[in-house]
Amino acid sequence: MYIGRVIGNVVATTKDSSLKGKKMLIVEKLNIQSNTAETSEVAIDTVGAGNGEYVLVTKGSSARVSSGMDSAVDAAIVAIIDSIEIEK
Amino acid sequence: MYIGRVIGNVVATTKDSSLKGKKMLIVEKLNIQSNTAETSEVAIDTVGAGNGEYVLVTKGSSARVSSGMDSAVDAAIVAIIDSIEIEK
Amino acid sequence: MYIGRVIGNVVATTKDSSLKGKKMLIVEKLNIQSNTAETSEVAIDTVGAGNGEYVLVTKGSSARVSSGMDSAVDAAIVAIIDSIEIEK
Amino acid sequence: MYIGRVIGNVVATTKDSSLKGKKMLIVEKLNIQSNTAETSEVAIDTVGAGNGEYVLVTKGSSARVSSGMDSAVDAAIVAIIDSIEIEK
Amino acid sequence: MYIGRVIGNVVATTKDSSLKGKKMLIVEKLNIQSNTAETSEVAIDTVGAGNGEYVLVTKGSSARVSSGMDSAVDAAIVAIIDSIEIEK
Repeated sequence: MYIGRVIGNVVATTKDSSLKGKKMLIVEKLNIQSNTAETSEVAIDTVGAGNGEYVLVTKGSSARVSSGMDSAVDAAIVAIIDSIEIEK
Repeated sequence: MYIGRVIGNVVATTKDSSLKGKKMLIVEKLNIQSNTAETSEVAIDTVGAGNGEYVLVTKGSSARVSSGMDSAVDAAIVAIIDSIEIEK
Repeated sequence: MYIGRVIGNVVATTKDSSLKGKKMLIVEKLNIQSNTAETSEVAIDTVGAGNGEYVLVTKGSSARVSSGMDSAVDAAIVAIIDSIEIEK
Repeated sequence: MYIGRVIGNVVATTKDSSLKGKKMLIVEKLNIQSNTAETSEVAIDTVGAGNGEYVLVTKGSSARVSSGMDSAVDAAIVAIIDSIEIEK
Repeated sequence: MYIGRVIGNVVATTKDSSLKGKKMLIVEKLNIQSNTAETSEVAIDTVGAGNGEYVLVTKGSSARVSSGMDSAVDAAIVAIIDSIEIEK
């Protein structure tokens, strides 16, 4: 899973029926060691994340475990992060 | 999922039977923060997307949820985007 | 799925039983916008593709839909391309 | 699978129910030939790994084999490495 | 699938039970056109490959087809390569 930050959202009326009622948030992937942003993508919110929050994103078929196995989803927000501890 | 723009299409007569009757569109992946285009690939259209439209693409086995679990597809257009909101 | 060109083949006598009798072709991935070649990899041919032909390759578990769900395959050629149309 | 080193952990109270009780560790992916660190990500610990330990990480749906097929997990620590032998 | 060369192995006593008895080899991914080595990773050997041999590696859930669907494995060696033929 990767650590990211919610930076926006996407609205779409015409979509796969499995996406109806699901919040589509834009997440910026963070390189936690250099504290820089990398690419960004759209993930389905399954835990009530809001803009600016630090989140954990799961990709691939595992994303469907939290958003519904019958949902056409390959990225899901699965946690809102309280703290990150790095000890190198 | 990633945000992309439809820039063309592919025609193939000789193909896996599961692809028959499916529209194969070329989608340019967009970096929505720098508003630049990255790589492009072929995705099955499942929502009636047209050329130039901004779309949401799902990858991997999740793409088969919208194009049919018995289809040899690893990328599917699952939404036509109305609006993108970024609040950094 | 990505667009590629068949540039060769691989022969292996010692292999997983699920690969027996399957043609293992080397496909060069093409960046269709800059018309340059990127990486290359091995894909199972499921449509009778020949050397030099432009093909469509499906990756991951979806590749097994065309080559057999019980085959240890993560890339399959699923179409021979007739035409590519780009309208930017 | 890739070889990595545990460099920290993540704490999240609000999360997918399938993540409850699971240790979320930050793993730095290592390029074992140049002995340099690449990206880092979060993996579920399934073998009792501690900070600073060299581990083996499995990605994708295969990660769910060790963390539970009903867990929203795409990366799992599946071994603590005793030794690495390179003979080029 | 990608073409690689076996360059070493990994030993781990503490590991997921599904990895017990499986040979964990380090494979260097080869760019067959420029004949240079790219990244390296750990793959489960399922065909008796030895150090220095050129092999074919399958990734993701398809790797579990050869190493056992209940194994926490995302990369498996599925063939020992006899010959590579490139005709550009």
